[in-house]
Amino acid sequence: MTILTLLDYASVLVFAASGALVASRAQLDIVGFAFVACLTAVGGGTVRDLLLDRHPVFWIGDSTNILLAAAAAVLVFFTAHLVESRLRWIVWLDSFALAVAVSAGTGAAILTGQPPVIVVLMGMATGTLGGLMRDVVCNEVPLVLKQGELYISCAMAGAITAVVSIAFGLPNRWALVACAVVCWVLRAGSITFGWHLPVYRSRPPRS
Amino acid sequence: MTILTLLDYASVLVFAASGALVASRAQLDIVGFAFVACLTAVGGGTVRDLLLDRHPVFWIGDSTNILLAAAAAVLVFFTAHLVESRLRWIVWLDSFALAVAVSAGTGAAILTGQPPVIVVLMGMATGTLGGLMRDVVCNEVPLVLKQGELYISCAMAGAITAVVSIAFGLPNRWALVACAVVCWVLRAGSITFGWHLPVYRSRPPRS
Amino acid sequence: MTILTLLDYASVLVFAASGALVASRAQLDIVGFAFVACLTAVGGGTVRDLLLDRHPVFWIGDSTNILLAAAAAVLVFFTAHLVESRLRWIVWLDSFALAVAVSAGTGAAILTGQPPVIVVLMGMATGTLGGLMRDVVCNEVPLVLKQGELYISCAMAGAITAVVSIAFGLPNRWALVACAVVCWVLRAGSITFGWHLPVYRSRPPRS
Repeated sequence: MTILTLLDYASVLVFAASGALVASRAQLDIVGFAFVACLTAVGGGTVRDLLLDRHPVFWIGDSTNILLAAAAAVLVFFTAHLVESRLRWIVWLDSFALAVAVSAGTGAAILTGQPPVIVVLMGMATGTLGGLMRDVVCNEVPLVLKQGELYISCAMAGAITAVVSIAFGLPNRWALVACAVVCWVLRAGSITFGWHLPVYRSRPPRS
Repeated sequence: MTILTLLDYASVLVFAASGALVASRAQLDIVGFAFVACLTAVGGGTVRDLLLDRHPVFWIGDSTNILLAAAAAVLVFFTAHLVESRLRWIVWLDSFALAVAVSAGTGAAILTGQPPVIVVLMGMATGTLGGLMRDVVCNEVPLVLKQGELYISCAMAGAITAVVSIAFGLPNRWALVACAVVCWVLRAGSITFGWHLPVYRSRPPRS
Repeated sequence: MTILTLLDYASVLVFAASGALVASRAQLDIVGFAFVACLTAVGGGTVRDLLLDRHPVFWIGDSTNILLAAAAAVLVFFTAHLVESRLRWIVWLDSFALAVAVSAGTGAAILTGQPPVIVVLMGMATGTLGGLMRDVVCNEVPLVLKQGELYISCAMAGAITAVVSIAFGLPNRWALVACAVVCWVLRAGSITFGWHLPVYRSRPPRS
């Protein structure tokens, strides 16, 4: 239980910071920062909890999550101007949040005894949907769908790692750590070295 | 209970009208008007009910809400051409709906015995998410995120007013009225006199 | 029961294919194809199940749905280049999926004993929201809101057909078939012959 709560807090904090940076690009005020930060931070986990019928939803049951997200937003509001390339920070913060959130989502789904396919999907949903909401609401090109980068693939690889590790007898806690590591390494490799899967390319012009 | 139902109806009606006006800017047909009107009218309250696990969701339990929203859409379809500036009407209708919906959302969350932080968030979510869905679906710049205007801040101030009033012993019904008044006055002041909080501005060009 | 499961599978398969084709226009990789396909395929039914508090959500209770959607995505990834006009295919696939999904959503709502207004709305939501999510996430103009075409109207007509047929004593299964047929014929007529309802047009330029 403790490791799940920790993972949730960590992903909330880092996703919130990434959301606040996106808010800074949209030149919002401090309440706008907090709004986007909270949406990003709890969006994915909220969808996971609603889908699995887990009530209360994690941040309703434990307000710490929201307070953490709001604190991160305030911090970013007063320090974002110190950062040289906000876009670069967004991408890297998002990579950490993704890894941790996939792990948290996978862990929560395992606890409710879902079959492997659903566990993997819940991990992917928890990791990617908060960032997707952030980008759709703020009108940025969704990181999830950026061409030529690994993103959802990292989430999937991480979640599958957890499921397979557990099948091989690894204790849950280590399986979740392995999940986060695999997810983050793939994402970092994609950002730094351009690792990617072949994308669909049509011969004729966009029809 | 009665005041909550009344607040729900009022916000449904006014949000529906604002949604129908946005549909008129997108030149939809009468069914499209009704669709956008319903989405706007019940969107925020639906998220609130799902998050709080209140079933049936308010408009599923009481179809009057949908019929009101559809009626408002039909009315707007046949009268929108009489209006000189639809954008201006949208903004003002939206301000009333916001105030009333924040109040309704806050009231509903109080009834389910949530802690203050969650009550405030539910009020904010109920007030802002319907309009946000309207704007995202119709591809307008979300009012929620417009620079240099108070919007979510008004929702937050209203919801906090309600929570504090109740803590000071005011009966629920008056606390909810105070909530709507504070929210609307702030929003109206922002529209009319340009009241706003300082926004984030970076020195270098958008990075 | 069997006909409902069948309708769900059919709409999942065809919506998934339409989602994968939209992913091909956005030049995503194979995992991106699967993501958009799954979102499109199960989006509408998921909203329906959450609103009606039906748990487990249909695709969590029966993983076949997700596997079908993923299979459709893989198939499209390797064959989309054979297709001459992907846009045309998207529109037609979407029309079949719409008809079948409206029917499935209506049927599920009838089973839970909702009043007619809610049954119709659930049919409409199931049919239209998956495609709406696909288009919002991939930044396409939502088919749902395209001017001068019947879309939500077809969903509404189909759902009303089912409700009325049942009121007149038709067995559920035939009422659902009638629903799908009415919905699809209207949509096909709109695509082929331009059938539409009058749209709102303002005299002065867009205000």
